[in-house]
Amino acid sequence: MTDFTVDAAAVIADLDELAQLSGGRFAGAKRLAWTDDWLDARRWLIEKLEALGLEPHTDPAGNLSADIPGESAQFILLGSHIDAVPDGGWLDGALGVLTALEVVRQIVRTTHTPAIGIRFVDWADEEGARFGRSLIGSSAAAGTLSAAEVAGLTDRDGVCFADALARCGVDLETAATAPGDVLAGVVAYLELHIEQGPVLKDGRILVAPVSRIVGVERHLVTFTGQAAHAGSAPIPLRRDSLAAASRAALSIRESAITHGGVATVGGMRSTPGIITAVAGVTEMQLDQRHVDAGQLAVMLEDAHQSCADAAAEFGCTIEMRNLLSAAPTVFDPALIDLVRSSVEELCGRDVEPIPSGPLHDATEIGRVVPTAMIFAQSDPPISHAAIEDSPNAALAAAVDAYGRVVERLLSPDMLTTID
Amino acid sequence: MTDFTVDAAAVIADLDELAQLSGGRFAGAKRLAWTDDWLDARRWLIEKLEALGLEPHTDPAGNLSADIPGESAQFILLGSHIDAVPDGGWLDGALGVLTALEVVRQIVRTTHTPAIGIRFVDWADEEGARFGRSLIGSSAAAGTLSAAEVAGLTDRDGVCFADALARCGVDLETAATAPGDVLAGVVAYLELHIEQGPVLKDGRILVAPVSRIVGVERHLVTFTGQAAHAGSAPIPLRRDSLAAASRAALSIRESAITHGGVATVGGMRSTPGIITAVAGVTEMQLDQRHVDAGQLAVMLEDAHQSCADAAAEFGCTIEMRNLLSAAPTVFDPALIDLVRSSVEELCGRDVEPIPSGPLHDATEIGRVVPTAMIFAQSDPPISHAAIEDSPNAALAAAVDAYGRVVERLLSPDMLTTID
Repeated sequence: MTDFTVDAAAVIADLDELAQLSGGRFAGAKRLAWTDDWLDARRWLIEKLEALGLEPHTDPAGNLSADIPGESAQFILLGSHIDAVPDGGWLDGALGVLTALEVVRQIVRTTHTPAIGIRFVDWADEEGARFGRSLIGSSAAAGTLSAAEVAGLTDRDGVCFADALARCGVDLETAATAPGDVLAGVVAYLELHIEQGPVLKDGRILVAPVSRIVGVERHLVTFTGQAAHAGSAPIPLRRDSLAAASRAALSIRESAITHGGVATVGGMRSTPGIITAVAGVTEMQLDQRHVDAGQLAVMLEDAHQSCADAAAEFGCTIEMRNLLSAAPTVFDPALIDLVRSSVEELCGRDVEPIPSGPLHDATEIGRVVPTAMIFAQSDPPISHAAIEDSPNAALAAAVDAYGRVVERLLSPDMLTTID
Repeated sequence: MTDFTVDAAAVIADLDELAQLSGGRFAGAKRLAWTDDWLDARRWLIEKLEALGLEPHTDPAGNLSADIPGESAQFILLGSHIDAVPDGGWLDGALGVLTALEVVRQIVRTTHTPAIGIRFVDWADEEGARFGRSLIGSSAAAGTLSAAEVAGLTDRDGVCFADALARCGVDLETAATAPGDVLAGVVAYLELHIEQGPVLKDGRILVAPVSRIVGVERHLVTFTGQAAHAGSAPIPLRRDSLAAASRAALSIRESAITHGGVATVGGMRSTPGIITAVAGVTEMQLDQRHVDAGQLAVMLEDAHQSCADAAAEFGCTIEMRNLLSAAPTVFDPALIDLVRSSVEELCGRDVEPIPSGPLHDATEIGRVVPTAMIFAQSDPPISHAAIEDSPNAALAAAVDAYGRVVERLLSPDMLTTID
């Protein structure tokens, strides 16, 4: 049995320090992956690790890790991501990273070697906000990143994905084919995150185990019509790509409601994109999710049909480019039970594990390593927005539960189970 | 009676020279107003005028003019605009400017003073492609430009309208309040333009008089909802600004069909505009047109209602910012007749004047000066696109008709009528 207690106040202090460095608590986080802002946040994190006497290491995919070796050659992996969507919240990703940092801090403080090693990790580009493809670092580690599929991605300024990575010292080809050994010896991955949705708030629950993560289908749908003058082109003769995209977006939304999933069109980019011209080409960003792989497949088929129908109605052609297909991830039953019993011990009530609508690095790591997640209540139940927040009580409970799970993972009887 | 003949081949040669300087004939024109590209094209034009011994003058609104004084103090105003939408066509605007240049060239060549002065003009920023407000130079000249209404406009890079103008030596306040004397002494304005639509092609007509220009209502509609995570925000709880804008755009399009006008949503700009977030704010660019002012007012009322309904359906608020309200312009009956008889003389058949769906500088000038326009057939009947073109026969006929109209305007009996 180890003897450490994680301190939620220290985690919140670190979160505030990071927020001040990168945008402010509710002013919109400035930590977009592969930018100078992100590199600044990374440097701050590296200094924190070095101050604890650790030796931080960045792998070929840009993931930052640091080890506390244990008596066994095995490791428990703890972390999340500090990158953020543009003007995102102060907790998304950062909470998991800085809670893992606090665990590391407390274990270092005990001065004795833990029974099993602890590996801290900050995954690179979880959000995918700039290039549309999420989970870059964790999917590289899990061996599910294809360089060919993402090499051609560009951001809204036309910067190529591979070039943006190279600027940060990451070679895309190497990242995908030889991602390093961040998972070497790892027997369990544990990630703490805010829920980012309304379920816990509605249920008056501060902290909950996570059962699984939804499957995601993400596409860039290009509608190609014909640019024409807004005054002289009679409506029946137009090939209006933005009208087609609008029709498809609304139809795809209906399909998600019907099938109990979610579908989001987060943006449409039209060319020429001016007020006096019919939009010749419109790119539509489409994200669809469902906990059930079969239902997700049906939603995707519906989306294909909706886009084809809308294109036909408005005289356009379509191209659907797949950006991400992530099957639902079911977490490790034994680890879920461990989280569940820790939460019950802490809160005095059993909390049913809930599914996650957002993707997390645990999506990819959970495919290759026994994984579990803990959610802290979000209030307002909004994320990917500056107003994202959680009650202090929820943060405290979640950090406490996380510490309890780590403590039990490090206990001798658990080690036998893990082996 | 003057004795000059305009040479369509010279006009086409000038058009090609300009196209080569600024993008290529079918490669997309690079003459966006208030950019270096546009200033380059302007310099080229100034050199052409100076080579004819004229003294080009740029007024406080950025309009370029040059005079051939006549025996009378009156002037016939000839011109159009050389600015272009991004990647626009080679004829839109440039045809009218370079045909006017050819008339000037021929009149200079006759060596004798015309009975009435000829004033060449290249209006500034007809297109409004960068800031959303068209007809800047011509509305300044006509006294219908309000600096207060346009000062706050920004381009997609956040550059302010007034700053972009200042960079080109134009002070917005002065342009609107003291636009100079480009219309001083002007008794008639004549503009040649491509039709930019399918009417003449469908009717197998090369050239036609224009009866009037549609009225236009142009708005930037901002839908404000709430950014949220694409995975965790249940659809019924979302306040999706892009879904609201999509619904409104399709509904506004239906209203235009019902009322016999046109309506165009050329672009939607969402914030945060990423694939993993519900769009918190969406700006919709809306352009509505009708030849009848009453019908246009009904269409605008429908648009207000459609936006309000869509906002209510998706939990958003709306703000509609007016960018341009241009009442329909009816051209001068005597000048229309003059164009009509010149076209009949040339083509051997009477051609009914047609209305113009696109705005032109003649929209604003026609409010304060007797005005007429000539349209050349477009084939393909597409404009504001790189593929814009007209048959050589249509260009030749249109240039010839234009020359005939100028010639008749300069004849002594016509001068009596104008007086």
